[in-house]
Amino acid sequence: MRWGVLLAGGSGTRFWPLSTPSHPKQLLPLAGTQSTAEAAVARLDGLIPRERLLVVTGAALAPRLAEALRIPPENMLVEPRAASTGPALIWASCEAARRDPDAEVLSMHADWSIADEGAFRTTATLALDAARTHDRLVTVGMVPSRPETGYGYIVPGAPLDDSARNVARFQEKPDAATALDLMAAGALWNSGLFAWTVTRLLAEVAQHTPEVAPHLTLLDEGRVEDFFAALTPVSIDVGVLERSRRVAVVRGAFTWDDIGTWEALTRVRPKDPSGNVVAGPGFAHESSDCILWSSGDPIITSQVQDLIVVHANGRILVMPRERSADIKKLLDTLPPELRDLQ
Amino acid sequence: MRWGVLLAGGSGTRFWPLSTPSHPKQLLPLAGTQSTAEAAVARLDGLIPRERLLVVTGAALAPRLAEALRIPPENMLVEPRAASTGPALIWASCEAARRDPDAEVLSMHADWSIADEGAFRTTATLALDAARTHDRLVTVGMVPSRPETGYGYIVPGAPLDDSARNVARFQEKPDAATALDLMAAGALWNSGLFAWTVTRLLAEVAQHTPEVAPHLTLLDEGRVEDFFAALTPVSIDVGVLERSRRVAVVRGAFTWDDIGTWEALTRVRPKDPSGNVVAGPGFAHESSDCILWSSGDPIITSQVQDLIVVHANGRILVMPRERSADIKKLLDTLPPELRDLQ
Repeated sequence: MRWGVLLAGGSGTRFWPLSTPSHPKQLLPLAGTQSTAEAAVARLDGLIPRERLLVVTGAALAPRLAEALRIPPENMLVEPRAASTGPALIWASCEAARRDPDAEVLSMHADWSIADEGAFRTTATLALDAARTHDRLVTVGMVPSRPETGYGYIVPGAPLDDSARNVARFQEKPDAATALDLMAAGALWNSGLFAWTVTRLLAEVAQHTPEVAPHLTLLDEGRVEDFFAALTPVSIDVGVLERSRRVAVVRGAFTWDDIGTWEALTRVRPKDPSGNVVAGPGFAHESSDCILWSSGDPIITSQVQDLIVVHANGRILVMPRERSADIKKLLDTLPPELRDLQ
Repeated sequence: MRWGVLLAGGSGTRFWPLSTPSHPKQLLPLAGTQSTAEAAVARLDGLIPRERLLVVTGAALAPRLAEALRIPPENMLVEPRAASTGPALIWASCEAARRDPDAEVLSMHADWSIADEGAFRTTATLALDAARTHDRLVTVGMVPSRPETGYGYIVPGAPLDDSARNVARFQEKPDAATALDLMAAGALWNSGLFAWTVTRLLAEVAQHTPEVAPHLTLLDEGRVEDFFAALTPVSIDVGVLERSRRVAVVRGAFTWDDIGTWEALTRVRPKDPSGNVVAGPGFAHESSDCILWSSGDPIITSQVQDLIVVHANGRILVMPRERSADIKKLLDTLPPELRDLQ
């Protein structure tokens, strides 16, 4: 049967001061009125029932997520520590296999904004079918809309059928020139939407992932803490997909955004005629291409461009839009009494 | 005897959203821990006692000012409407004359920042003495530190004694090139610090100020409302000083700032090594030449320059420092529910 795995970790820093450890971005209505985590679950309606959806997250976040998503407690997989996507997805796949040895898994992140739900379900179904039919680990590739240097790229290889192709190679976070070349050559963004049968995933892990594979017996014994203590953190991309020869790609036919920074709101939120995104009380006077986000007091900007201004959780942040990826560096510098939020 | 007149009007817009109609800038501790109005009164210690200090202001502000400044109620002159500086100073001079026909008046604004109190008192004494000795209306001129286009300039003429000279002419708000020429020619800023005997002032008004002079009998009858209704608003500079031939100038030997805009805080407040003024909780990270003012939540800026960021009275304002003179235009544009503060 089909199982879903929702990766819902995150330290809550990218959207500081709006996001906090107990309220990270997947619980915020960044793209609309629904949080991205709620939207991710709703998107699976008709494809995967809630009782076959496993949510991998951290302790700080688990109670709030379980409540928001109405997920059965036994389906909340609480990581004792963050160890990248490899252990999380391998653990969740083992858990699916324990309950259903013939399980197919569709894995995704809780912080995506996806515009066309129907196209998402069509793509997900194609990916799950390709995983079973071709006995491959299947990744969904998105057609790039810009030469993004923050993503991984997939170079497709030989066709397997009308919708699936082998993967020739992966290219993680290219420089700008390489990103342009990759776009021109038809490479796709690695979205993080994956499909596989648990049988195939665990076979590939056993063969290729020494960081995790030797410790899987601990999981069989129910020793989750020991498993996480023993393993070496590794991403699913580096630890499995880039090493395996049984990887295929299906092209995603929907609009996808991982809303990785404040900047991303300009892609998923409506803009005024001057290109400003104003969420919450605010007024952008003779200002252009700004993001005003207030869950507190009204924000008034005048005669400024390309700024992010946020009021949330008792903090006001002002920074250039194009530097929104630097928030972690800023937080490393901030005095703790200004930085730390509940 | 010496009397003081403190002009303490103001609509409370220049420092929006910190300043409000009931709490305009002269009641804010803009330059330090004391409000400029309190500092103005304290500065007169030993020169003019509080019981001979008249405060001209509006109804919205009078109670708060009387309390903050501990001024006797009979010394609060509440204008029924704002009518520029001419009627205010003429009224206050008449009031001083009524109580003391031989009064000398020193008039000043409540929103000044003055660094050297001793030098201020020395200058004020020189101005009062010159007013009496030479029977002149005396204005104190400040040596310009920049070609400011927002001020009026005084071109000094023939000397009257070691410290006082006649005024050759006034030049109101010159363009930038003219301001440079005026600076080079030794012109002084018209500070608004004036000294005169009430006898001389009222004689000059009778001769030169048809906007106000014919209505002074209403004041004699105690009909203040009728006086303000009948007169035509005019500044003391245009209505009296520029028309009179009995005007002298004394050079001010102190540092003076009228703190007319947010920008002015960079002149009267300490700056960090990157030129930022941070008042209240805040942190300027890789930012330079910014003004962060919070009487609310901490303000964090990152990688921005030359911005004003304010959190006060439930509003957040972000604008370029060099546009701080445009706040009135901004307020004209803002929806009332965002603009209006208590």
